[in-house]
Amino acid sequence: MRINGNHYKTVWYENGTVCMIEQNLLPFDFQIFRSETWQQTCIAIKTMIVRGAGAIGSTAGYAMLQAVEQAPADSYLPSISHARAEIEATRPTARNLFYAVEAVFEAALASVDEARKAAFRIAEKDEQDSLAIGRFGSELLRSGMHVATHCNAGALAFTDYGTALSPVYQAVEQGKDIFVFADETRPRAQGARLTAWELAQHGIRHTIIPDNATAYYMQQGKIDMMIVGADRIALNGDTANKIGTLEKAIAAHYYHIPFYVAAPLSTFDADCPSGCDIPIEFRSPDEVLYQQGPDEQGIMRNIRVASPGSGAENPAFDVTPASLISGIITEKGIISAETQAIRGVLSL
Amino acid sequence: MRINGNHYKTVWYENGTVCMIEQNLLPFDFQIFRSETWQQTCIAIKTMIVRGAGAIGSTAGYAMLQAVEQAPADSYLPSISHARAEIEATRPTARNLFYAVEAVFEAALASVDEARKAAFRIAEKDEQDSLAIGRFGSELLRSGMHVATHCNAGALAFTDYGTALSPVYQAVEQGKDIFVFADETRPRAQGARLTAWELAQHGIRHTIIPDNATAYYMQQGKIDMMIVGADRIALNGDTANKIGTLEKAIAAHYYHIPFYVAAPLSTFDADCPSGCDIPIEFRSPDEVLYQQGPDEQGIMRNIRVASPGSGAENPAFDVTPASLISGIITEKGIISAETQAIRGVLSL
Repeated sequence: MRINGNHYKTVWYENGTVCMIEQNLLPFDFQIFRSETWQQTCIAIKTMIVRGAGAIGSTAGYAMLQAVEQAPADSYLPSISHARAEIEATRPTARNLFYAVEAVFEAALASVDEARKAAFRIAEKDEQDSLAIGRFGSELLRSGMHVATHCNAGALAFTDYGTALSPVYQAVEQGKDIFVFADETRPRAQGARLTAWELAQHGIRHTIIPDNATAYYMQQGKIDMMIVGADRIALNGDTANKIGTLEKAIAAHYYHIPFYVAAPLSTFDADCPSGCDIPIEFRSPDEVLYQQGPDEQGIMRNIRVASPGSGAENPAFDVTPASLISGIITEKGIISAETQAIRGVLSL
Repeated sequence: MRINGNHYKTVWYENGTVCMIEQNLLPFDFQIFRSETWQQTCIAIKTMIVRGAGAIGSTAGYAMLQAVEQAPADSYLPSISHARAEIEATRPTARNLFYAVEAVFEAALASVDEARKAAFRIAEKDEQDSLAIGRFGSELLRSGMHVATHCNAGALAFTDYGTALSPVYQAVEQGKDIFVFADETRPRAQGARLTAWELAQHGIRHTIIPDNATAYYMQQGKIDMMIVGADRIALNGDTANKIGTLEKAIAAHYYHIPFYVAAPLSTFDADCPSGCDIPIEFRSPDEVLYQQGPDEQGIMRNIRVASPGSGAENPAFDVTPASLISGIITEKGIISAETQAIRGVLSL
């Protein structure tokens, strides 16, 4: 991804250190967070220094690699097994996390070197998948289109390039004029903060809208397509993604607006027959009740944005039923959100 | 409405002064704003010291009364005509505002005393209408129900008691156990700030949820009914209300959850055949890009909550088509959202 004119990845590995763009500081400050232990990398995932399906996957793979590299020879298996459980507990909804941790763990049973290869392969594949998704997805986009997206499934959510935004990046590179509506995406505002920041860095025309306004712009005929990412996709096509995705999908369905999910095959969970089987993470009510940002002097402040006498609930994800999804853009092409097509692309 | 154990109205008139609960300070500070001129009252409406359909109506009526009382005898008509235009320009979507200003202006053509009677009649009627709406609406509510609401159509949005919340207040007074989901209602967070505050003041069980989460709770079967207010209702039942109402109505429709609009007849605009004819107010992008609230020390801060390089759009209202509305709770009873029923209740 382009940042201040240079190319960066969201997460990479340097001699035992996991390097990550510190996403909690974005869009106000651009810094690289360097984690030297798997425990620290777990904290980075938990505190959302790194977030987004693919980026969490690569980071979790690297965390598992750190655990493997740092495991004492006399307690190798118990040590890496313990680390695996801890890493898996960081973000329970993220499919890619389990996929990556499992792959590196299995490889580590052969050798540390195999674990290293596995971790790098996961990150490299994530990057290539994003590019392929962009290639297929960009074929859906004609010049002049207005695309809405929810949350951030851009380069910052993956090792690079992203999923929902990758088609936009490639369409614009192909010379197409694309305008993006970025849903704010409360409570953490990944749309207003990360998607808007990414799009601005790439010089792509866009505007931030409150989550409440998406249906309004659909009603006005101003949104031609919606593309979102996914945290986990069940075998029947039901898709877990950032809270609010369901509401957008229902609105798109009502207005007959194509609603696409963009995700690599690693996001599919073949052990999960339907969305009912996807656990939903509830995060701290404080994310709803408080908000952080710089004041006029640029000093970061934490302010209360809700009535002091009241509490909040904060489900982080919801499940969009397959019936509301026009198609899933994968690295193998665009498929229907239904069991047969998913089984086919997963070679099950 | 009950505030710290005492009864308050949202707006009242005392010897030429319009007194209003300062809603921009709520829920963090409770103060009364006293406006001594119609110009100052216009600013109070524009800056949302007072907001909400009915409260704006009463305030606009009182503003018109101030203009009438303060008009020089030698330029009475041009003076009050000028004031009328200025007051009407404060909030272009608010039906009640035009209704109130027109009534007081017409009465002022007879005498200042008639204008005074008209302004007081409007506020008194608004209060009685809220009580009647609560009575009819409470019949829809059974003990144990979970009701969702968007924005604030509570006592703070009217002279007293409110519309969407009035049925809840009366149901609870009748001994029914009612739980309220208060949508945060970005960008101005009237749900998280005002509705939550009102409900807490009345001791009613509730939780704040991000606007993105409403469909999730509907999908989980946790919302039994949704009741919202209205800023303007067209003759065919199409309803303008706070941005996001449309999206909630679509979601409620999708999940077959009853979706009610609660509004007095003064909200109906017989000159407006359908929602297409309702102008939508766009407010400053800064409402989306910045947010205000107290920090840990209680000092009010204005922070940037979006990427500094990006802009935003901020439509303040949307129009929900009548087909998505289960019924409209008015002071004359609950009616269908369709032309014949509306003509009937308006005696057209």
